[in-house]
Amino acid sequence: MRDFRHDHSALALNTATLGHNVEGAGAGWSPERVIDACAERGIGGIVFWRRELAGRAAAIGDHARRSGVEVIGLCRTPFLVGPLAERDATAIADDFRRAIDLAAEVGAPVLTIVTGGVAAGTKGMGESLKIVAERVAQAVPWAREAGVKLALEPLHPVYGGNRSCLVTTREALDLCDGIDDEALGVAIDIYHVWWDGDLSRQISRAGRRILGFHLCDWLAETTDVLLDRGMMGDGVADIRAIRAAVEAAGYQSFCEVEIFSANTWWKRDPADVLDVMVERFRTVC
Amino acid sequence: MRDFRHDHSALALNTATLGHNVEGAGAGWSPERVIDACAERGIGGIVFWRRELAGRAAAIGDHARRSGVEVIGLCRTPFLVGPLAERDATAIADDFRRAIDLAAEVGAPVLTIVTGGVAAGTKGMGESLKIVAERVAQAVPWAREAGVKLALEPLHPVYGGNRSCLVTTREALDLCDGIDDEALGVAIDIYHVWWDGDLSRQISRAGRRILGFHLCDWLAETTDVLLDRGMMGDGVADIRAIRAAVEAAGYQSFCEVEIFSANTWWKRDPADVLDVMVERFRTVC
Repeated sequence: MRDFRHDHSALALNTATLGHNVEGAGAGWSPERVIDACAERGIGGIVFWRRELAGRAAAIGDHARRSGVEVIGLCRTPFLVGPLAERDATAIADDFRRAIDLAAEVGAPVLTIVTGGVAAGTKGMGESLKIVAERVAQAVPWAREAGVKLALEPLHPVYGGNRSCLVTTREALDLCDGIDDEALGVAIDIYHVWWDGDLSRQISRAGRRILGFHLCDWLAETTDVLLDRGMMGDGVADIRAIRAAVEAAGYQSFCEVEIFSANTWWKRDPADVLDVMVERFRTVC
Repeated sequence: MRDFRHDHSALALNTATLGHNVEGAGAGWSPERVIDACAERGIGGIVFWRRELAGRAAAIGDHARRSGVEVIGLCRTPFLVGPLAERDATAIADDFRRAIDLAAEVGAPVLTIVTGGVAAGTKGMGESLKIVAERVAQAVPWAREAGVKLALEPLHPVYGGNRSCLVTTREALDLCDGIDDEALGVAIDIYHVWWDGDLSRQISRAGRRILGFHLCDWLAETTDVLLDRGMMGDGVADIRAIRAAVEAAGYQSFCEVEIFSANTWWKRDPADVLDVMVERFRTVC
């Protein structure tokens, strides 16, 4: 297991952690300012969201690389199914390809897939997972061509209804098995999977298909399942054990901090949040 | 699979559905009035919460039986571990035994176990599940002696931090295997397990150890994970498929409706709630 106590070059920022998607949060920092703040602190990687790149993806990617910060991923595909997805399958497929193209443009090697929830007129996850498998299979050749890998991210079962019919690492790997293409893998996010008693077995099964590893924490008394994620060390997830499993499976890349936190971290000065993130990464991860 | 279209005698009410634990909800109905309302509608079973029986358990149980309503269960043990549990192990064990005694007194054959969340000073579920196993094993002889069975209820992973380190049917059965006593089994609650891709396999594994089957629904756009459960048919859970699996495993007893719903059902007239419950049971379950 890697020792991060004196080296946080494997630490990456997902810009959501600075409140990217809340008006006025993140003190209105531009992508370039966020990159510079990461570079100053020796944070080695960054993950943007599509909306932040609006027409400037190549320039932002170049700025990051010149600053010594790797763009390691892009968030995310459109919802592929469920109540939050577009109704028109063609529109979903088009937007999926645009997301892949944008990842290539900013220089991100990985695009995260969030599946969306239960398809209208169906019950349970089964039918929705079939639709997801079809839509991902359709997009995989485009991703391969663009040099972008797709990371299926199982979300916590609390999102099962509307945001993700894919709720366990096992099912994400089953889906990968069904498509069987090197351009497709999984992302392991502690917030979403920490509770899963089957996790270490599935991480071992995943092996080299782990394309992303996300850090945060689950607050025991979480008050809002969307915007109340914890900073590493403040919750009950066994972060070290999960990281040990992920590394034993062969993952030696970045650890990406992604914290949605409307009432705590998004209210803090982004510079402070970055400082705390570095300190926690070194001490509790 | 049983046909409930013209027969709802297997329907049971968990009194939580009428807002038992909210000041002023349930229009202040007494346990006897709830029993009478069930009897009038041909609802065959009832499950009380401990607080409702305060000193009158035997009389309330007798009233139910005289009215033709079976008392099929009692909610619930104290939290056995985690931030909401008492600190003192002896106090927990004593209260566990009092809950068993109360179940016997009201004539309930089953007492539900809710485990509680992650133990202080630990991370992840592992240590907490060990503590739960010890505390359940301790209580089992007392339950056997009292003629009460104990039903481990896995709760939805969203409660993993504070309310239940037991979040899957698989883990509940693993725990049963470890103790191996006929007085211990599991309760399957649709709200908690609907998302689980491993569920049908685990239900089949459970077989005769299924001591309770709870109906409700998962609302796709659920707003509060504690008090926003849906009435059967209003959500995305595949209720029929889960009931089919439970019955195929050998369960032929009551289907208990347990809906915590501060903003919808607890605001309605309890008589209406019971009427809707019967209608939904006949048409969508």
